Amino acid sequence: MLGTSNNETIDDLQNGYHIIQKSAGFRFGIDAVLLSDFAKCNANRMMDLCTGTGIIPILLAAKTHIKRIDAIEIQQDIADMAERSVQLNQLSERIHIKCADLKAAPEIYGKSVFDAVSVNPPYMKAGSGLKNPDDTKLISRHEVKCTLEDVISVSASILKPHGKLFMVHRPQRLADIICAMRKFRLEPKLMRFVSPHIGKEPNLVLIQGVKDSAPELKLLPQLYVYDAEGNYTKEINEIYGR
Amino acid sequence: MLGTSNNETIDDLQNGYHIIQKSAGFRFGIDAVLLSDFAKCNANRMMDLCTGTGIIPILLAAKTHIKRIDAIEIQQDIADMAERSVQLNQLSERIHIKCADLKAAPEIYGKSVFDAVSVNPPYMKAGSGLKNPDDTKLISRHEVKCTLEDVISVSASILKPHGKLFMVHRPQRLADIICAMRKFRLEPKLMRFVSPHIGKEPNLVLIQGVKDSAPELKLLPQLYVYDAEGNYTKEINEIYGR
Repeated sequence: MLGTSNNETIDDLQNGYHIIQKSAGFRFGIDAVLLSDFAKCNANRMMDLCTGTGIIPILLAAKTHIKRIDAIEIQQDIADMAERSVQLNQLSERIHIKCADLKAAPEIYGKSVFDAVSVNPPYMKAGSGLKNPDDTKLISRHEVKCTLEDVISVSASILKPHGKLFMVHRPQRLADIICAMRKFRLEPKLMRFVSPHIGKEPNLVLIQGVKDSAPELKLLPQLYVYDAEGNYTKEINEIYGR
Repeated sequence: MLGTSNNETIDDLQNGYHIIQKSAGFRFGIDAVLLSDFAKCNANRMMDLCTGTGIIPILLAAKTHIKRIDAIEIQQDIADMAERSVQLNQLSERIHIKCADLKAAPEIYGKSVFDAVSVNPPYMKAGSGLKNPDDTKLISRHEVKCTLEDVISVSASILKPHGKLFMVHRPQRLADIICAMRKFRLEPKLMRFVSPHIGKEPNLVLIQGVKDSAPELKLLPQLYVYDAEGNYTKEINEIYGR
């Protein structure tokens, strides 16, 4: 079970942990790093939906004292890879990977059981451009197996009252995100936009919804990834723990 | 009718026009200047709701070739003052001020008649903190006479198909704004956040909704008012026409 197969790499996360990824598949990016930082909390029990390689639970395990992180991934080979990363990092007591459709989460885990949920969902709507709906990269990037509304309704169902959903997404979908959150009584409370650099439009949004909370959205200062010289900004280096 | 009374000032807008304002009342601020810039368009007929002193129509008249701008203000003395500013600037052929409750706009002007609507509405929810609900400053700042949902539903009603609503508001209300826009089929299409300076959270949001348009929100790069030395940024100076 441990170790990697031919088309995989083991990458050092520079925080004492490692992650197994496919050489040519969907590899974690800055969105996962930013989400794991945005989602830092002192939950007793947390869920990571659409966990993929398990990058979010592993980064959260390093950054927080969360006791137990459950994580769901719908693709069997990716879920197996995530499980191997968990074992490689000796995190099996804190992180529990399951291969399942997230829509089954309320049935598997029960309703109102998690203090927090994180999710880096597929960004793109399923559209006519999809040639091979079983392609693992496509499933990670397009809403083939679950929609944004599935993600939000399931989160609302498994969260305790006042539990928090942390999501990273594309700003283009913000109206869909906010309306779906309201629909399922996850009030948008905190939001942060991320731009490559000053003067460029945001290409990521971090958003926190709180179950059954009163309306009032707080925005954080915009986060920039690169400075004028093309290096990571101080804040990004801090998030990466450098 | 022309001229000012004792407690009024005439201020030079530096664009060939002037505005009459109360010395101690609600005076126009940077939100009006930013909205008039964001709302520049080539509409044949435009409406400004909650027009106050008429600052938005007068700034739009200077910046655009819009043929006719109607404007509604609920407070009689403020509407009179706006009308005097229009006459002072010899803009009576382009700008038409009316003292009315904006909820009557569909009845007064008809449905689906405007190409664009601008609005700088009261930012604050009517709350228990209000001591004197007839105070003109309070009416300009709190939702005493109209709610956010009134503003959006009226805009949707008087706009032509694909007509545009341009609004400036506080980011705290963004979830309310986006959900109300969707409810009344004004799709949020363009948004820009404004911060005092880099590293500070946004305190204004400019948002454009388009009637019966397909979902997809575009964000503009964040706008900063002051540079590191505390001077207006280049972009703000351009918006002010300096």
